Amino acid sequence: MEGFEKEESTVLAKPLTKECPVRLGGDEEIIESVVTGMIPSDMLELKLGDCNRAAKIRREALQRMTGRPLVGLPFGGFDYESLLGRCCEMPVGYVQIPVGIAGPLLLDGMEYFVPMATTEACLVESTNRGFKAIFASGGATSMLLTDGMTTTMSLRFGSAERASELQLFLEDPINFQTLALLFNSSSRFAMLQSIRCAIFGKPGMNLYVRFTCSTGDAVGMNMVVSKCVQRVLDTLKNDFPDMDVVGIPGNFCSDMKPAAVNLIEGCGKSVLCQAIIKEEVVTKVLKTNVAALVELNVLKNLNGSTVAGTLGGFIAHTSNIVSAVFLATGQDPAQILESSRWITTMEVDINGKDLHISVNMPSIEVGTIGGGTQLASQSACLNLLGVKGGNKELPGSNSRLLATIIAGSVLAGELSLMSAITAGQLFNKDVSETAS
Amino acid sequence: MEGFEKEESTVLAKPLTKECPVRLGGDEEIIESVVTGMIPSDMLELKLGDCNRAAKIRREALQRMTGRPLVGLPFGGFDYESLLGRCCEMPVGYVQIPVGIAGPLLLDGMEYFVPMATTEACLVESTNRGFKAIFASGGATSMLLTDGMTTTMSLRFGSAERASELQLFLEDPINFQTLALLFNSSSRFAMLQSIRCAIFGKPGMNLYVRFTCSTGDAVGMNMVVSKCVQRVLDTLKNDFPDMDVVGIPGNFCSDMKPAAVNLIEGCGKSVLCQAIIKEEVVTKVLKTNVAALVELNVLKNLNGSTVAGTLGGFIAHTSNIVSAVFLATGQDPAQILESSRWITTMEVDINGKDLHISVNMPSIEVGTIGGGTQLASQSACLNLLGVKGGNKELPGSNSRLLATIIAGSVLAGELSLMSAITAGQLFNKDVSETAS
Amino acid sequence: MEGFEKEESTVLAKPLTKECPVRLGGDEEIIESVVTGMIPSDMLELKLGDCNRAAKIRREALQRMTGRPLVGLPFGGFDYESLLGRCCEMPVGYVQIPVGIAGPLLLDGMEYFVPMATTEACLVESTNRGFKAIFASGGATSMLLTDGMTTTMSLRFGSAERASELQLFLEDPINFQTLALLFNSSSRFAMLQSIRCAIFGKPGMNLYVRFTCSTGDAVGMNMVVSKCVQRVLDTLKNDFPDMDVVGIPGNFCSDMKPAAVNLIEGCGKSVLCQAIIKEEVVTKVLKTNVAALVELNVLKNLNGSTVAGTLGGFIAHTSNIVSAVFLATGQDPAQILESSRWITTMEVDINGKDLHISVNMPSIEVGTIGGGTQLASQSACLNLLGVKGGNKELPGSNSRLLATIIAGSVLAGELSLMSAITAGQLFNKDVSETAS
Amino acid sequence: MEGFEKEESTVLAKPLTKECPVRLGGDEEIIESVVTGMIPSDMLELKLGDCNRAAKIRREALQRMTGRPLVGLPFGGFDYESLLGRCCEMPVGYVQIPVGIAGPLLLDGMEYFVPMATTEACLVESTNRGFKAIFASGGATSMLLTDGMTTTMSLRFGSAERASELQLFLEDPINFQTLALLFNSSSRFAMLQSIRCAIFGKPGMNLYVRFTCSTGDAVGMNMVVSKCVQRVLDTLKNDFPDMDVVGIPGNFCSDMKPAAVNLIEGCGKSVLCQAIIKEEVVTKVLKTNVAALVELNVLKNLNGSTVAGTLGGFIAHTSNIVSAVFLATGQDPAQILESSRWITTMEVDINGKDLHISVNMPSIEVGTIGGGTQLASQSACLNLLGVKGGNKELPGSNSRLLATIIAGSVLAGELSLMSAITAGQLFNKDVSETAS
Repeated sequence: MEGFEKEESTVLAKPLTKECPVRLGGDEEIIESVVTGMIPSDMLELKLGDCNRAAKIRREALQRMTGRPLVGLPFGGFDYESLLGRCCEMPVGYVQIPVGIAGPLLLDGMEYFVPMATTEACLVESTNRGFKAIFASGGATSMLLTDGMTTTMSLRFGSAERASELQLFLEDPINFQTLALLFNSSSRFAMLQSIRCAIFGKPGMNLYVRFTCSTGDAVGMNMVVSKCVQRVLDTLKNDFPDMDVVGIPGNFCSDMKPAAVNLIEGCGKSVLCQAIIKEEVVTKVLKTNVAALVELNVLKNLNGSTVAGTLGGFIAHTSNIVSAVFLATGQDPAQILESSRWITTMEVDINGKDLHISVNMPSIEVGTIGGGTQLASQSACLNLLGVKGGNKELPGSNSRLLATIIAGSVLAGELSLMSAITAGQLFNKDVSETAS
Repeated sequence: MEGFEKEESTVLAKPLTKECPVRLGGDEEIIESVVTGMIPSDMLELKLGDCNRAAKIRREALQRMTGRPLVGLPFGGFDYESLLGRCCEMPVGYVQIPVGIAGPLLLDGMEYFVPMATTEACLVESTNRGFKAIFASGGATSMLLTDGMTTTMSLRFGSAERASELQLFLEDPINFQTLALLFNSSSRFAMLQSIRCAIFGKPGMNLYVRFTCSTGDAVGMNMVVSKCVQRVLDTLKNDFPDMDVVGIPGNFCSDMKPAAVNLIEGCGKSVLCQAIIKEEVVTKVLKTNVAALVELNVLKNLNGSTVAGTLGGFIAHTSNIVSAVFLATGQDPAQILESSRWITTMEVDINGKDLHISVNMPSIEVGTIGGGTQLASQSACLNLLGVKGGNKELPGSNSRLLATIIAGSVLAGELSLMSAITAGQLFNKDVSETAS
Repeated sequence: MEGFEKEESTVLAKPLTKECPVRLGGDEEIIESVVTGMIPSDMLELKLGDCNRAAKIRREALQRMTGRPLVGLPFGGFDYESLLGRCCEMPVGYVQIPVGIAGPLLLDGMEYFVPMATTEACLVESTNRGFKAIFASGGATSMLLTDGMTTTMSLRFGSAERASELQLFLEDPINFQTLALLFNSSSRFAMLQSIRCAIFGKPGMNLYVRFTCSTGDAVGMNMVVSKCVQRVLDTLKNDFPDMDVVGIPGNFCSDMKPAAVNLIEGCGKSVLCQAIIKEEVVTKVLKTNVAALVELNVLKNLNGSTVAGTLGGFIAHTSNIVSAVFLATGQDPAQILESSRWITTMEVDINGKDLHISVNMPSIEVGTIGGGTQLASQSACLNLLGVKGGNKELPGSNSRLLATIIAGSVLAGELSLMSAITAGQLFNKDVSETAS
Repeated sequence: MEGFEKEESTVLAKPLTKECPVRLGGDEEIIESVVTGMIPSDMLELKLGDCNRAAKIRREALQRMTGRPLVGLPFGGFDYESLLGRCCEMPVGYVQIPVGIAGPLLLDGMEYFVPMATTEACLVESTNRGFKAIFASGGATSMLLTDGMTTTMSLRFGSAERASELQLFLEDPINFQTLALLFNSSSRFAMLQSIRCAIFGKPGMNLYVRFTCSTGDAVGMNMVVSKCVQRVLDTLKNDFPDMDVVGIPGNFCSDMKPAAVNLIEGCGKSVLCQAIIKEEVVTKVLKTNVAALVELNVLKNLNGSTVAGTLGGFIAHTSNIVSAVFLATGQDPAQILESSRWITTMEVDINGKDLHISVNMPSIEVGTIGGGTQLASQSACLNLLGVKGGNKELPGSNSRLLATIIAGSVLAGELSLMSAITAGQLFNKDVSETAS
């Protein structure tokens, strides 16, 4: 998620003092104070020093203010303390998203039962059918191509010369070591990979600087990246005191936007996943045939998407699978957007009869620590996949494995939906032939 | 969500026969059968005739097969029967996503407390700050520009002439009435708005037909649209028996892909939302100034996004807010992708001192019936906003209101984040001035 | 070309008075006056009343001012009078672009010898080879899908309500007749096809109105469209005196920009062209095979272009052919940009052995009257194709025929280059096999 | 231009033997042979050994075959020998494109008179007005950000492992020196800058390799790049004999397509040009005011282009100016497409009253040797700018200077057209005010 100011979160994160509550009176009294606006709803945690009680009071006040009962929105069975300063402010309960299990996905020789949190019909079942086809064909394989999160700062100078000097300084290989040392010193996991500048607007005066770094098992946008970039900035200020920081991030990252830069340069994990689906599996499990799939892929995923003027959407329904695994494992749903892209290919395999299918996903943004991964239910799903928390031997390997599992699941989902569509086609063919 | 085959869902939707369970023995026995593969996990609901028991057995079997305990993933307090054939297959529990309440949002003269399901820190609080600024400035106003869901079928003919004939037939205004009657007859809510063809690939032989229709309060992709399009197809088959249905949908819709067609023609609800934020509110509530916001908007949301090569991402963090309201209200998270786009503008207001801010969102895909909206917790959130279920007097007005509330929330979110960024900038400025 | 102000062109277009010259003295004197800046170079035509003499004097003055001889840039054999107020200001000579002849192109049963003005090696020869393959296979066929030029005006109002009123007025079918009458009355050839509005920026206050109209045999951007739109505007001013015309055109057209709207809605002529190339022709004339072409098309024109993040560039080298025919026939080279797009498809034909190839070009912007088409050399090339000037029986049919000839030539060019690439591949294969 | 096969051009490039002509008889006889098809038109140069005579005979034969006189298309005053194997096959004459002179452009302290070959009215005059405004404001400044041409080869392997090995080999910094030596050895001017791989399609099996290199004063697509890449390929074949070259270029370059990769990474010359236009110059020369220009730029070039769904077209009419200078100086008009992009910014200058304008053009593809630059008339125009031929002291500096002059001219053109549009607006305002 884009970098909210640290000051804001600090307010909530400070230790709750236990003295305050005494003077506030009983629940009923406080509820009335919230309803009348004497106590702001967002101050409850701070004033009460008890997150569960605060949430309960807020909930009751909300019902009175709106006259709308929240029956149906569960409250109990949840640790509101766990949200404080980390996940969600002003809670009044939680929504339940059912988790279905598809699998096993046979990927790179290992079996995974994939948790999918979804409210859509047929999604788990359809993905599961894809898993069966992959399993029966000997499994899928994946390649992690790159692993680096990006952020941008946009800077402004009073003159073009100064901006150029900074660009030269930042892009000089000699300085990279120093900058990397600085950058990396702010986090145990951050490791700077590259710096890239773009001059824009008033030329030479607006400098967009894009940092790419590995972030261990965290997505890393907030804590790691912001801190590290800030550290670099602070030091640069010594030599460039005239530098004006216009914005971090500066949209050249490009987080949560459908941008070409993420497709071309990658962002987060860039993963390729492929499988060869045997001809008989296509027939028996998927109820279709290889030629029909290859043809539909060109007509729908390539040509059809071209007619629609897509940038990076040469796919059938990637975001369905991505969002289900994202929600189950506590990822940021705002990042479904750039994590659900690129291209699905289907070709007749070299042997002339089986199906070769691949998905190419250049910007899967996932982590196994931080954000929603810390909550109990999401943490259990990560554990089911064997990727809970940070990997201590090999930092980053948990989040990388999660990214490949997502790509494998997308492969299954694409395979199954495309098969369902072609099967419908064949069915209609029969009908029309019978009819004529 | 893209149209899964009806046959698939039919399997699960058929009434559970109560005789089966008897022969299956006790839970322990069944769990073992699932573990050994004798009973397929996805057959449990059908065989047991008891969704809660099926889920429980599946969960236990899963723990044994993987050796990984699911402690932390809640199971109880949920009605698994409510999922059957409608929401999520093979459930083993649910994830909890905390719901924070921001508001009131003062929009078009009404006040709304907006439920946001999120695991991200500061999102609710930041949006809430935006709501405060809007409230203190007299509220925001919205315009619903269009309301029409789209789907595409791709057809293939043996000759260019035949494809042309169909195109002419479909685009002839004279036939529109007949086609609309047919289309609309399959659903109480569907109302055909337009038909648009694109010939492609082997020219004249592949015909992409894009239907746009209103869908009442449902998103409408699955049930309404598929049924209606099928009805039209069935009839067309009489005159065009040589027509081959290659795929529905054909990616010209364009559901769940970042495509230009949705930006230009709209898909779902197309909403504009604007507010004039008073200068003193910008200073006091948002801790920044109008000029800084206007400048940052050009540098970040326009120029920065251009550097990144975006198509429709001239925004700061729209998908953050969209995803939080989507999850709270049971929307399809896969559609966050196309619902989170376009452009945020910030200008100095005509009076020369206040801030004019607007968000333009051309394809918000939401509904208040069907899918996840039927679950208890999501339904409660819809109720909080006064948009639960289908609106009986004015079908479609609930989902349209929900779309404008989302746009209003996005406006608040953009306003608040952009302010936080500029405030950071000002802060740094002071520091550097002091330092020098 | 985008609409330059009428005032500007009026200056040059006014009849040259013959009295002025007398007082100016001899050539030598005037040249010196230009060199010293006493007579502005752009006033020569007006002051001298003799375009040829003005150009000659300007040329000599330029050589003296720069000290750079213009030897090599021809001057004679050209009618400078023909440029006045129509083509090119401040001329000093002309460049020569050689015209090669490829053909015959067998298209829709007719034969065309296509003039190609180019300075690139192999382009004419390669296109010619494509023509041979098409000819030997029985010819190509084309379909003109749409024919309508677009322009946009952007308007601004003081309030959202007023802007909405105008939008409703413009999009109301009842008013279309009246608006069309107005629009069409300003030109013999303009025929309004549709009006489309987009509200943007300060919502309800900035209204982008996109007009689509047929323009006879002219491209129509300048004269026809501007005049007609102005006429509509003038009338609208009566009912909407508070309307502020911010800009015509408003970039929603979208002339001379790589924009999705032109791909999706078409602009100028939208043409499909296809051919079935016989297997033996592929082997003998093109020295390759069908399978190799089909494969390369997916790898290069679809996947390769996707890797590059293209929007509408699923092609091999369309702009090569488009630019050569554009230059030969006096089209606006600035419009090569949007005229050179979309997609080339190659598939094995239904018979399982021949090659089906098509090009889909949604925005070919050409005319046979106005601009460069009036010059002698370009006019001769139009005459060679039988499309010189406006078609009197069927206005617009000359420019439509020219558009299909361009599409046919692009088809040949794509076919030939793709064949050359695959032939190179086959060649290398042989070498490596021999080598190993 | 994309790489035509060497074999093809070799045919024409071989020295003409002088013996052949004797046996062919007189002109009349040969003309008849061409008309009847006994002598293929494209064999005339080879058979006659006299390019001028060949062109003349072809021209006459063409007139007879088509029955269409070519009067108006000039023939004499042109050296057809100069085309052989270098520029245009099967010539029959040439088109004349008038060259107007705008200027002086005051850029980086130097003055340039810019030749513009165009048939569009007002283009030269309008650009000239922009030059005047720039001159009166003290001139424009430019920065050359990058200078590197790109090409791609697409390779295919039998297994993912082998493809990965090649990718690792190519991207290993240790091997860069060796590869660069190889690459650079094939041309005096080529200097390899970077190699970048993308795996795609059947993952690990299709490898797209993108080379970026400087090319001296040539555009370099054909000769330099192809030769150099071929050299690298030949060597790689030793270690990777199983490598299959599917295509060069592979569309990841991306030549002649509107692709994001060129915007983001640059292709050819990447140039920024800026100027500060004084307030009084805006008023007196451009007849408008700064605020109107800044506002129109946001409404038209940013928002309007966004409505149109552009990728890199945040401009007013860049391609008008680019094409005029391209044609005058013998550039490849097919490359107008990617050379005419990106963004025009207009802001109030820091002093609060002047106008800051910039154009950012990331892929200007120009050269001063090769192709059309060799013809007499185009060469004269290059000479006028002082950039004729290759620069001997500093190879590449001529083409780089040409690129900055083009950017400077575009700046002037944008400035002038935008002013004309706002002036129209102001005019209308007055009218409406008077009217009311």
